[in-house]
Amino acid sequence: MNTIRLTIAYDGTAYIGWQRQAQGASIQQLIEGALAQILGETVVLHSSGRTDSGVHALGMVAHFRTERNLPLAAYREGVNRLLPRDVAVQEALEAPADFHARFSARGKWYRYALYQGVVCSPLLDRTAWHLRGALDWTAMEEGARLFVGTHDFAAFRSSGCEAKGTVREIYAVDLVREGELLYINVRGSGFLRNMVRVMVGTLVEIGMGKRPAGDIGRLLEGGDRCQAGRTAPSRGLCLMEVWY
Amino acid sequence: MNTIRLTIAYDGTAYIGWQRQAQGASIQQLIEGALAQILGETVVLHSSGRTDSGVHALGMVAHFRTERNLPLAAYREGVNRLLPRDVAVQEALEAPADFHARFSARGKWYRYALYQGVVCSPLLDRTAWHLRGALDWTAMEEGARLFVGTHDFAAFRSSGCEAKGTVREIYAVDLVREGELLYINVRGSGFLRNMVRVMVGTLVEIGMGKRPAGDIGRLLEGGDRCQAGRTAPSRGLCLMEVWY
Repeated sequence: MNTIRLTIAYDGTAYIGWQRQAQGASIQQLIEGALAQILGETVVLHSSGRTDSGVHALGMVAHFRTERNLPLAAYREGVNRLLPRDVAVQEALEAPADFHARFSARGKWYRYALYQGVVCSPLLDRTAWHLRGALDWTAMEEGARLFVGTHDFAAFRSSGCEAKGTVREIYAVDLVREGELLYINVRGSGFLRNMVRVMVGTLVEIGMGKRPAGDIGRLLEGGDRCQAGRTAPSRGLCLMEVWY
Repeated sequence: MNTIRLTIAYDGTAYIGWQRQAQGASIQQLIEGALAQILGETVVLHSSGRTDSGVHALGMVAHFRTERNLPLAAYREGVNRLLPRDVAVQEALEAPADFHARFSARGKWYRYALYQGVVCSPLLDRTAWHLRGALDWTAMEEGARLFVGTHDFAAFRSSGCEAKGTVREIYAVDLVREGELLYINVRGSGFLRNMVRVMVGTLVEIGMGKRPAGDIGRLLEGGDRCQAGRTAPSRGLCLMEVWY
């Protein structure tokens, strides 16, 4: 039995998200379909996690197991020939038999992109959140630092999140300006559903002066989702990397 | 009579190009439609030039004339509310009565984006040309320099181009690396149909070692379209700015 590890990039705009669902086009379904054509058998792709509708990835990781012994190129070039242009396998590697894209993961890097301007920018619109008006970057950096460490993130998740444990470790939250884009890079051990988007939504409210930076500390203690900021739109979020 | 000058940005992927045509969605038709709703009268938008299907713009300029005296904000915020997310008016200004977006233009800046990699990159795919394999950047810069100046660009246009005169002045061709993207910036007095895309296609063939940099000089003297490189895909091209 071979365990194959794929690194996958996609523009999530046209999809209902990573996970296969009864209705709608998912990334998982697309790649499983292409693999079935290449392999002549159906396989199940296990990913490092889900991404929601509209969320992008440059470094999603998933694995599958197969008895077939195809060259690794078949899982990249071969599969890519069967995929639409907004999804592509970036790398295919053999992995140890006990590798599991989700359970072996040690951490993830998500990047959230913002841009400011009076008018929206059509060429950034699919991949960044457009905000009018100025942001207090210093206050946002102050708030961002409060996320770092091991905390209960119960206040920073979607109401539909069913995870039992809500304690996660955040390694770093970095704010970077690159041209007209502002990136919020979040690295951590694991993430609750919508966690990065609620963190970003709260940081943006701090940047707009709607709440003090210290709110983050109170939210990490209080755990009340209703007190945190709005969920930032999915379009700005990109899963950059998963570490093993 | 008021003359209004608009600066317009768009993601050209979904459109047949700038110009209104019998079939298909054009940028011109979209904005004229929104202006008609705002103004309560039909106006004709005159642009600095056309862009082909799939070509993008950050700084397309167009003007129209109207007897109505609306605040300029109506032509930006008002129009943008009626446009889809991939088209947006960036700026609306009053212009002198004799301003004409095409005939008053003194020059234009086009940017062409390339990216290299074994695998295509879904998040760059709409706005850049993906090339496998290495490019000889030095040879491309050598070739690029030969374009600068006043030349007959008859070899660097589409076979469908009907312009009588084919002499144009190129002010500068700069090659810039920015992250994973390679930009070819072309500034000039005016451009024939597909001229930038044929210039880029020829430069890429030089970068791939398929032809020497000196070919550009020969093509500018010879004027034979069949001898120039392939037309680079529209997706990589963006009209950045028009000067008046």
